[in-house]
Formats: sequence, structure tokens, C-alpha cells
Amino acid sequence: MALASSSLYEPLNESSAAALAARLGLFETNSVLQCEEIGDGNLNLVFRITDSKSGHSLILKQALPYAKVIGESWPLTLDRARIESSALVKQAELAPGLVPEVCYSDQTLAVTVMEDLSHLQIARKALIEKKNLPHLAGQIGSFMARTLFYTSDFALKPHAKKQLVLQYMNPDLCKITEDLVFTDPFFDHDSNDFEPELRPAAEALWADSEVKLHAAKLKKKFLTEADALLHGDLHTGSIFVSEEETKVIDPEFAFFGPIGFDPGQFIGNLLLNALSREEEDQDVIFEAIEKTWYTFSATFAASWKQDSRERFSEVDGYLDHTLGQIFEDAIGFAGCEVIRRTIGLAHVEDLDGIEPYEKRIQVKTSALELGRKLIKQRHNLTEPGQLKRFFRHAILR
Amino acid sequence: MALASSSLYEPLNESSAAALAARLGLFETNSVLQCEEIGDGNLNLVFRITDSKSGHSLILKQALPYAKVIGESWPLTLDRARIESSALVKQAELAPGLVPEVCYSDQTLAVTVMEDLSHLQIARKALIEKKNLPHLAGQIGSFMARTLFYTSDFALKPHAKKQLVLQYMNPDLCKITEDLVFTDPFFDHDSNDFEPELRPAAEALWADSEVKLHAAKLKKKFLTEADALLHGDLHTGSIFVSEEETKVIDPEFAFFGPIGFDPGQFIGNLLLNALSREEEDQDVIFEAIEKTWYTFSATFAASWKQDSRERFSEVDGYLDHTLGQIFEDAIGFAGCEVIRRTIGLAHVEDLDGIEPYEKRIQVKTSALELGRKLIKQRHNLTEPGQLKRFFRHAILR
Repeated sequence: MALASSSLYEPLNESSAAALAARLGLFETNSVLQCEEIGDGNLNLVFRITDSKSGHSLILKQALPYAKVIGESWPLTLDRARIESSALVKQAELAPGLVPEVCYSDQTLAVTVMEDLSHLQIARKALIEKKNLPHLAGQIGSFMARTLFYTSDFALKPHAKKQLVLQYMNPDLCKITEDLVFTDPFFDHDSNDFEPELRPAAEALWADSEVKLHAAKLKKKFLTEADALLHGDLHTGSIFVSEEETKVIDPEFAFFGPIGFDPGQFIGNLLLNALSREEEDQDVIFEAIEKTWYTFSATFAASWKQDSRERFSEVDGYLDHTLGQIFEDAIGFAGCEVIRRTIGLAHVEDLDGIEPYEKRIQVKTSALELGRKLIKQRHNLTEPGQLKRFFRHAILR
Repeated sequence: MALASSSLYEPLNESSAAALAARLGLFETNSVLQCEEIGDGNLNLVFRITDSKSGHSLILKQALPYAKVIGESWPLTLDRARIESSALVKQAELAPGLVPEVCYSDQTLAVTVMEDLSHLQIARKALIEKKNLPHLAGQIGSFMARTLFYTSDFALKPHAKKQLVLQYMNPDLCKITEDLVFTDPFFDHDSNDFEPELRPAAEALWADSEVKLHAAKLKKKFLTEADALLHGDLHTGSIFVSEEETKVIDPEFAFFGPIGFDPGQFIGNLLLNALSREEEDQDVIFEAIEKTWYTFSATFAASWKQDSRERFSEVDGYLDHTLGQIFEDAIGFAGCEVIRRTIGLAHVEDLDGIEPYEKRIQVKTSALELGRKLIKQRHNLTEPGQLKRFFRHAILR
């Protein structure tokens, strides 16, 4: 756990990354490699290495020993490269075709080499551009159901499950979520970042002890409930899409946490996108949320009926209770996500791209209202069909 | 995790145990050591080594690589000796004076050498003998509050807490509890053990899908909620007492689980003792349960107010919610304990010693009723003062 920067580790550059790929035999011997760093460079270096003869290309991702978004002063374990590559392999086994294929990983250099998905687009961008994504919701619903069910105590023998919990201990990355999603946005903390016009709404949130009590309970779930191997950062920026394909990337936040967290982050980011749209363009997003949930719950239920090894699975009501609890948690986690993307450290283009400025402030104020109500009223929401009306009502002022 | 029997491990006998103690310098050089094996030999060898000149004595406990209670065919990791000795050291640090002092531990031989507590009596025996134990409830309440609070996310920084979770991964021993407490007694399983006259009541339990749904939820908490470092087996047979002293022993089941489990097992075993008594002798037990809970909650609350590092601790209602949830869980876990000690594999002398036989069957039938109602109605019990009336009502037929 918490592998520190080793003495053999060094950050690659375009030339050394290409040389490494060649040395590893990842390309034909007579290939002519070109390499380009394409990452945003906050946490990782990302190189695209292309054989200009065949056109074949791969992605080489290397973890950096710090988080650049807040300066080099926030050290971050390189062990997350191990977490990421092993999570990709596990997810590929459980949800074939829905993650990039890993062809090499190396813990010393904190490197993962994988399939190049440059023919696809990040789902957040595609949603902002109002692209038609007919398979996104179903494929993400299926991805979540299969990766979460088959790493839970419902599917695994106790020793195997606990061995995985140990393998995916990820305290550094969990700490980021504990702080930036579940804590800082609910207090007047230095890491928060928002327009001055939002201060009254932020202060109203910080003074709302009811929402803070609910946020405390959701944070405790995240800290203590080791249900299943989460992706851990399943927002729309962690998904590549086309009209046909869906590929989930970047599972460096993977760890054993509450099952509702992944659906919550995904639904939360769909709601952030809905907020950014005019009312007449929102229906497709609410339909996507419904399809996500119905695919998730149907796939989870089918896996439960076919493969549960938990003796109590056969008990009347246990599956329904489990799905109901996951949905309630997901709605609460979605509320936390909507709030933290509005006033916390890490923003989303869906909201930050809204023009003009006055409209952006108005939508972000609505986002805070929506987040609060999702958190506080999650017990009353029992199925995703209620969300559209709930959303419209929540943002009315 | 799951350290197998090493080639250097061998079970000690009275002679080699004394020789080891001498070699380790645990006694004066001119001492004359006598050694006696005093364990029940189910899971461990327990030697008392006495210097017949000074009268000074120590206990040397060695884990066996199997559970003898069900034959040598159930292998059990020797790693539990590491868990036990390190848990005793951690508990001594957090709850001074309430556990035996450890003077030596050795992972190769799976040995822990500790303070001899032979001047004390096992609490279960003392309760069966209706001894006056004025400090038991308060000291156990305090022990639980301090060991549980100070190993939780409320007190520890996230990395330190997750490091402890890893250190106390204990899958072999957890599996015993998962099976024998939370699963087998709720089904017609081979491991169950009860008098033929109890079969109708056992079958009624197995046919009660409401209680099974609740048991499933409690089992899931045990499997997934890593709140704090539990003792993990805090029944009255794991406690040495006198009128003045209380010492908690045998934490080989220690792991990070739901906080309510330790108070639940302790309260469950007090209720088992109450069941064994005539009504006029039960009040002292209900008073002990109340005192246990009030000492636990007052100590937990004081620690929370003084030492919580969780930002949300200051939020109105969070402490009350946390204590309320612990109490509700504890009542459910107590119900599971009452049931499994009645029809499961491991019985208690409180019930098995009841004479005549007809009376024993009658009390055990009441125990099953009580256990079911504790599990099903735990949401309605909000404070321990309600338990006496609840108990009397539950066992009325």
C-alpha cells in the first residue's frame, strides 16, 4: 500500500515513452514510432504512440507522483497505476468490451499501456454537443451491474472477496474523494472554488444542518462500506463513446466501497448535463437515467438469480431491498456530486461552459438547490421515473 | 493474510512451553518453573507457567492450526495469534487495565505470553452463580466505547485507519462468525445442534422470511461495514471478573466491523443469562444491560466531543444518530447471538445447564422467540430501559 516514488521511477518523455514501447515489443520490429503527449497532465502523463507505417497506435499512461491541479505539493502514490491496470483487467473480465484492453503494465515506472480509443469521444463532450448516444446508458448500466455484483459478497467466497479488498486498498485516492466530494463543499473551505455571486447560496448550504447530517451519513458509507470494487470516479469524463461503443477508462480511484457510489456519480453527471440544457432538450437525459437504472437493476437481478452464492439471496424481499438501498444511496451520492461540481475544487464543462455569465450563475444556483434536495429527499425517491418531475420542481424558485 | 502453518511451527507441550519461557528470560534466572496445560484445547493450547519459588506465573497461549471442536478437518490460520496479540496491545493502549498485559509474542510459534488472570473467574460462570459483579457493566461499556471510538474514522486519520483495517484482515475467523452466527442457525444446516423437542420452533424460525430478511441485512453489515476494530467475540466467556476487576481476553476474532457487533454480543449473552434465571433474579441483569449501554454511550459521546477529527462531528444530530444506529444494530446482533447459542453449533452453559430438561426446553423455546423479536423489532427499541418489558412480553406464550 502507498508505494512511494521508487528510485527507479522517472517520468517519461515522448522519446523515452516510444523507446519503451519499442523495447517491450508492443509494435512490429520494423515499425516507425511517433509519440505525442496528449494528457491534461494533472495526475498522469498520457502518450499516444503510433506506428506511422501500419497506423497502429497505443496509449501509454504514466502516473505522476503528485497532483498538479493543486501544485506539486500534494504527493500522490504511484501505487494507483497498479490499481488502475489491475482494475482494468478485472473489469474487462467481468464486463467484456467495455474497458480499453491492457497490453502491458509496470509498477516500477507506474505505467499502463492500453488500447488507443482516439476514435471515440469523451462522453461529457458528446453530451454537451447533444450527440445521439443510444447505447451509453445501457452499456454503463450493464458495466456497473456486472463489475459491482461480481466483486461483492453476493458473488464471491469470503476469502476471495477480502483478498480483493486488500488488493484494492487505495487510501490516497479515497482521501481525495473524502475531502473534495464529501467534506469541503459542505463547509467554507479553502479548496472550494465558485463565482462570488454564488456565495449566498453556498452559505445557505453551509448553514443547512439537515443536509449536512445527511452528507455525514453518506460520507460514512463511503468511508466504511466495503460492498464491491467501485470504479470510484465514474463521471462522464471517464467514459469514451461513439454512437455504437462505450469504454470506461481511468479506474485509478478503484476501491471497495458502497455499490451506490458508481451509479450515483454517473447519474449526478447526467443531471449536471441536464442542468446545462434548455428544458426541451432535457428529456433525452432523463430517459438515459431511467435506462441506466433499469439496465443496472435488471442485470444485477439476473446475476443475483444466476450466480449469488449468498444463502440469504433466496429470501423474499432481499433482492428488492438491496436494489432499493442502492438506488437511495445513488441519489444521495448524485446530490453530493452535483454540489461539489458546482462549488468544489473540480468543476465540469457542462456548467462552466454556460453562456452568458448570468445564465451560468442562475443554473449553478439551481444546481445547489437540486443537490441539496437529492441528498435530503433521497428516501422518497424510489424509482428513476420520478426524477424529471423532482428535478423540475427542485430548480423552481 | 492467511499465514499458513510454517515449517518452524510446532505445538508446545508442558515441558517445551516452560523451556521457552525460561529461554525468553520471562522469569528470574534462579526460578523453578512448573507448567500446566489448562486450555479447553478447541482452538488453542493454554499453559500456565509458575515459578514455584516466587509464586509468579504467566499464561502462554499457542494457536493450533485447526479448530478441534469440529475435528482437525477445519484448518484455521495461525495468523490469529498475531491478530490476538496485537489486538491486546492496541486495546491496552486504548482501555488501560481492561485486558491482560502482553509480555511476549511470536508469530512463528503463534504464541502470546501474558499476565496470568487465574485469580479471576470467567464472567459467564460468575453470572450463572449469581455473583455480585458491580463493575462488569461499566467497565465493559467503557472498554467498548474507547476501543471502538478510537479505532474508527471519527478518531483516526484516513490513512492510519485503512492501515489498521489491512493489519486486522481476519478472513478465517470472520468466516466462522459469518457461518455460525449469521447463516447456519437460520437454515436447516448440518452444523446446527439442538434438542429434538426444539425442532418445531426451529422450523418456525426457518419458515419466517421476515426474520430471515432482517438477518440477511445484519449479516451484510458484518460482511461489509468496516467501522472500527471489534473484539469480535465479546461474550461473557471472553471476560474475566471479580467484584473489582474486569479483563477482556481472547480477541482472536478481532477485525474491522460494525460497531454495534460488540455491544450486541455482550448484551445478547446477558439476555441468555437472564433467560436462565427465575424472574425475581433477572432485574440485576437488566440493570447491567442499562448500565453497559449508558456507560458506552456516555464514554463514546465524551470521546467524540473531545477527540473527533471528523469535520461533520459538530453537525446537529450526528452523534445522536450514530449512537441510535449502534443501539439498533446491537439489538439485532444480540438477537442473532441468542438464536445461535440456542440452536447453532456453539452453546452456552447458561442455557445448557438448566435443569430439569423440560424447563430447559421451555427456556430455549423462549430464547428463540426472544431472538426473533429482537431482530425484527430492533427499530422500535430505542433505549435499554425498554428491554425488560420487551423481554417479558417476548417470552410470554
